[in-house]
Amino acid sequence: MRLVIGNKNYSSWSMRPWVLMKQLGIPFEEEKLRLDFTPGSAFRTRLAEVSPVGKVPVLLDGDLAIWDTLAITEYLAEKLTDVAVWPRDAKARARARSLCAEMHSGFMSLRSKCPMNIEASLPAVGAQLMAGDDGVPRDLARITAMWTEALQGSGGPFLFGEFSAADAFYAPVVARLRTYALPVPPQVADYMARVWSAPGVAAWVAGALAEQDWIGEDEPYRPSR
Amino acid sequence: MRLVIGNKNYSSWSMRPWVLMKQLGIPFEEEKLRLDFTPGSAFRTRLAEVSPVGKVPVLLDGDLAIWDTLAITEYLAEKLTDVAVWPRDAKARARARSLCAEMHSGFMSLRSKCPMNIEASLPAVGAQLMAGDDGVPRDLARITAMWTEALQGSGGPFLFGEFSAADAFYAPVVARLRTYALPVPPQVADYMARVWSAPGVAAWVAGALAEQDWIGEDEPYRPSR
Repeated sequence: MRLVIGNKNYSSWSMRPWVLMKQLGIPFEEEKLRLDFTPGSAFRTRLAEVSPVGKVPVLLDGDLAIWDTLAITEYLAEKLTDVAVWPRDAKARARARSLCAEMHSGFMSLRSKCPMNIEASLPAVGAQLMAGDDGVPRDLARITAMWTEALQGSGGPFLFGEFSAADAFYAPVVARLRTYALPVPPQVADYMARVWSAPGVAAWVAGALAEQDWIGEDEPYRPSR
Repeated sequence: MRLVIGNKNYSSWSMRPWVLMKQLGIPFEEEKLRLDFTPGSAFRTRLAEVSPVGKVPVLLDGDLAIWDTLAITEYLAEKLTDVAVWPRDAKARARARSLCAEMHSGFMSLRSKCPMNIEASLPAVGAQLMAGDDGVPRDLARITAMWTEALQGSGGPFLFGEFSAADAFYAPVVARLRTYALPVPPQVADYMARVWSAPGVAAWVAGALAEQDWIGEDEPYRPSR
C-alpha cells in the first residue's frame, strides 16, 4: 500500500491515516507531495492521476484508490482483521466512529481559525480567538467534554483504551491545541501529552519539523518562518 | 432500534439512515422531532437526553446512542451481516465509502445554497445559482461525474448495483437537484428517477409531503408555503 500525503507540517487530513498506520505497525510506502494548488503543479498533476477530487490523502492499494480518511480507515479495518484499527468492543466501536465522524464533518471554527502548523507557536493568536466570538471556544468545549468522557469511560490511556483510529483522527486537533496554546483541564493535557509521545505521532511531528517549508495559504498569522 | 429524526421535508441528514433502513427492510421505530432550535424546545430537550451534539439523526439501540450518519451506517453493516448495507465486493465497498465520506464532509455550496425542501419547486432559484459563481455548478459537475462513473462501473440500476448506503447518502442530493431543477444529463436523470421511486425513498417523500410544516431557518427562498 502507498499513502499519498501533503506537507507534514500543515496537512491535518494526511496526518490521520499516516499516524494510524505507523502507530499500529501497518506497512506502507509514503509518497509526499508539496501542497501547491497552482495549475500544472506536481501536486495537481500527480493527484489528477489517482483521485477524482484532487485532495490528499489518497491510499493506493494495487489499482484501487481510496480518497477519504474515513473510507481509508474502514478499508484498513476490513483488510487487516488482526489489527485493532477500531476498538474491539462493538459499543465502543460505535462511539469511536461517532467521534471520528464528528471530526470529519464538524469543528469548522477550529479548523478555519486554527489551521494545523506543527512547527509554529502562536499563543497570542489563541488567546485572541478564545476572547472572540467566532466559535473557537465552543469547539474547544465540545472537544474537551468529548475527550474527558471517553477517557473516563475507557480508563485510558487513549480515548478507547489502546490507541485506535479515534486518537489518530484527533491527533491533528492535539497539534492545533498545542500551537495555539488553547486552555484545557489537566487530564486533557495529560492525554495530549500521551498522544504527542505515541511513536506514530512523534514520527510524524519529527517529519513536520524537518520540512522547514512555507505554504502561504496555510499561514494566516505568521509573517515568515 | 429507534431512529430519532427531524422534519422529513427538510432534514437531509435524517433522511439518509431512515431511507437506508426502510429500503433494506431493517426494522426500526421512528421518533420524529419538529426542528426547533429555540432554547427549551421539545427538540432540544429530547436531544439533550440522547446526544452530546444535539443534532438529528440519532440511532438508539438499547443504551447505545450513535449520533452520526456514517457511524450509524457502519453500525448497521456490522450488526446486520445478512443485509448488504455496503456493496459485497471489497473494492466497490471502498469506493462506496469514499463517495459517502465525500458527501459527509463536502459539497458545501450545494448544501448551503440549495437546502433540502422536498415539497418546494424552485427552478428559478436553481437557474440563478447555475449562472452565479458561488460553487453550485462545480458541486453539480462533481456529482454528475461521480454518479456517471459509478453507474458505468456497476451497470446500475443503483450506484454500486443494488441499492446501498451510497444511494441513501445521495438521496437528499437527488431531492435538491429536483427542487432546484439543476440540469443533468439523461443517464443521471434516469438514475434520479430510480432513486425517487425506490420504496424507501418514496415512503420518506410521502411523509415529507404530508407534513405541511414551515421551518423559517430552512426557507431562504419561499415567502410562504
